[in-house]
Amino acid sequence: MAQQHLDPTDPTAGPAPTGDALAGYLRAQATEFLRALRQHRETGAAAHGGTEDPVDAARALRRSVRRISGSLHTFRPLLEADWSEGLRPELAWLSGTLSMEHAYAARLERLLLALHRLSGAAAFPAQAAATAGMSAAVDAAGGGRDTPTADRGNLTVGAAKAGALLERQLTLARTRAHSTALQALGSSRFHAVADTVAVLASEVPLTAAAHTADLRPQAAAAEERLTDAVAVLPLVTAGSPYNAEALIHGLSPDPSPHPQDAPWHQVRLLLRLHRYAREALYGTQRPIDVRLLTAGQALDRHRDASEAAAAAASAARTPRIAPATAYALGVLHADQRHEVEAARFAFQQCWQKQAVSTS
Amino acid sequence: MAQQHLDPTDPTAGPAPTGDALAGYLRAQATEFLRALRQHRETGAAAHGGTEDPVDAARALRRSVRRISGSLHTFRPLLEADWSEGLRPELAWLSGTLSMEHAYAARLERLLLALHRLSGAAAFPAQAAATAGMSAAVDAAGGGRDTPTADRGNLTVGAAKAGALLERQLTLARTRAHSTALQALGSSRFHAVADTVAVLASEVPLTAAAHTADLRPQAAAAEERLTDAVAVLPLVTAGSPYNAEALIHGLSPDPSPHPQDAPWHQVRLLLRLHRYAREALYGTQRPIDVRLLTAGQALDRHRDASEAAAAAASAARTPRIAPATAYALGVLHADQRHEVEAARFAFQQCWQKQAVSTS
Repeated sequence: MAQQHLDPTDPTAGPAPTGDALAGYLRAQATEFLRALRQHRETGAAAHGGTEDPVDAARALRRSVRRISGSLHTFRPLLEADWSEGLRPELAWLSGTLSMEHAYAARLERLLLALHRLSGAAAFPAQAAATAGMSAAVDAAGGGRDTPTADRGNLTVGAAKAGALLERQLTLARTRAHSTALQALGSSRFHAVADTVAVLASEVPLTAAAHTADLRPQAAAAEERLTDAVAVLPLVTAGSPYNAEALIHGLSPDPSPHPQDAPWHQVRLLLRLHRYAREALYGTQRPIDVRLLTAGQALDRHRDASEAAAAAASAARTPRIAPATAYALGVLHADQRHEVEAARFAFQQCWQKQAVSTS
Repeated sequence: MAQQHLDPTDPTAGPAPTGDALAGYLRAQATEFLRALRQHRETGAAAHGGTEDPVDAARALRRSVRRISGSLHTFRPLLEADWSEGLRPELAWLSGTLSMEHAYAARLERLLLALHRLSGAAAFPAQAAATAGMSAAVDAAGGGRDTPTADRGNLTVGAAKAGALLERQLTLARTRAHSTALQALGSSRFHAVADTVAVLASEVPLTAAAHTADLRPQAAAAEERLTDAVAVLPLVTAGSPYNAEALIHGLSPDPSPHPQDAPWHQVRLLLRLHRYAREALYGTQRPIDVRLLTAGQALDRHRDASEAAAAAASAARTPRIAPATAYALGVLHADQRHEVEAARFAFQQCWQKQAVSTS
């Protein structure tokens, strides 16, 4: 592969990465997809033995799907149009379907940890309360109202009931997502995708001119799309601690997720595409850009907190919940919206450093 | 007065401020007390004409009471013990009684502004909603529950009902505080205090040795008490934005106000005593220390947000409120606890600058 001769310390050194480098990257990701799929099938059958492997296999599967899909997007002009346009929506469907189960599980964990933190040590005496103990609380709470006594303990009961309600709702959603993913993996639609990726592992449909074409203009365009999207983010506000922006409209009737979050979600996706484009160009020859990873982690945290806040708000709309439960969900929603604000601050700090050090 | 000959730019220049400077300061504050009291009586009778003056007069009264009380505390060894020990609890009673009405009014305003901000423009179309319009909402809400439909609009209704509930509770508390203050100002206990202050306006009961005694050791001790109290504050945490400390135990059964707030409230009082001691020593001969004022404002904001958060939590314990109301109060509570955290950050930033610039 062309990039093996590049000097890792100097991006302008050596020959330009060409379509052959892209083909190598796509073949590697396709091979990784097939390996993860095989592992998923093997460990899925053995899952009742208690091994963690199906989770790892599913993560590896999602990881390779995202990279193939991202490369098809960024390097579109270098790939056969019919093939590329046909595969991209299928990969998007697969990526979305495979990610939901993990997303619901992570969201529940985030919310229960936050409730635990907000309740202090006294409310949830054992770490177990954040996991198995909650199930007992679901049964005890039974979805009914509190008796309307106004003692302080009410709020703690509220936190426990809020946790039970969230666990019930998000576990149900997770179970459904699991079934949907299993169904998808057994569908003829998936088998068609897997067949296409199997071919990709040995033969990448580059255009005739792509083999010797310079990859850098496409990669630069991906970076420019990222830079443009960052430029419209309210970074001055985000860099001012405690600006209280994220909770604005926290009680408004606007549909969730908050519209103000959308540009940040967009930057998260563009940052990922930029990262994958770098991988396609330079593979492991370039050191990992730690600041790019850190910025990406801040945006992941932003997305997770945004969705967790929406889940808390959504749970508060459940009919016939007790006021104490609703109060706890309100505190939890605001807490996660502040996590959103904290993540924006972290991104701003990281991005500013990046801009200074590379200028 | 001795300090008139001090060089305002050099704290060590000129003769040391003595008990005579303290006597001058106390006489001036006592005169201010009598002026404000006279103004309060005159404007109080004319209050129905819509003038704002009774509020100004009450503020001036509280202001002079705090300064006399603080000076009696800081410069205790220089004043006749029996007189001083007798007057101090009376001034504390008066200060507490006079401050409650204003405190409830300010708390309600802070909470309604926060609800307005959190609800977005759509929820409270007019600024009037934060004041008079809320009363109509009280009547419409009638303290009853929402019908348990799960539409998004629920949360906005919740914000309006939360505002109505808070207005009802805090207006009632304010009205009671107003009556208590009026009763206090007509009591024989108050007349005894006023008589003592009237004497103070012409004759300050210094000890025999105090007239020529150096005030600076007592003032330095007051500053040292402040410095010691600041030293035990968790300033490293406070200086790290979005540390999420203030909302810890936000749902715990601990009594409000949060125990973690107490050391900050204590620093607020000690900072005030330090500021008054500087006033007694140097009067208007020294330029106002802007950073000291800024630090004090951050601690005032800390106290106000802490009490507003407690009021929201307390309102959420009202029996038979709708879940949507409780949810809005939970969001509001968390918002004010983040204001607490923001105020700590502001204090840390200000204090750090101070420490650097004076070292």
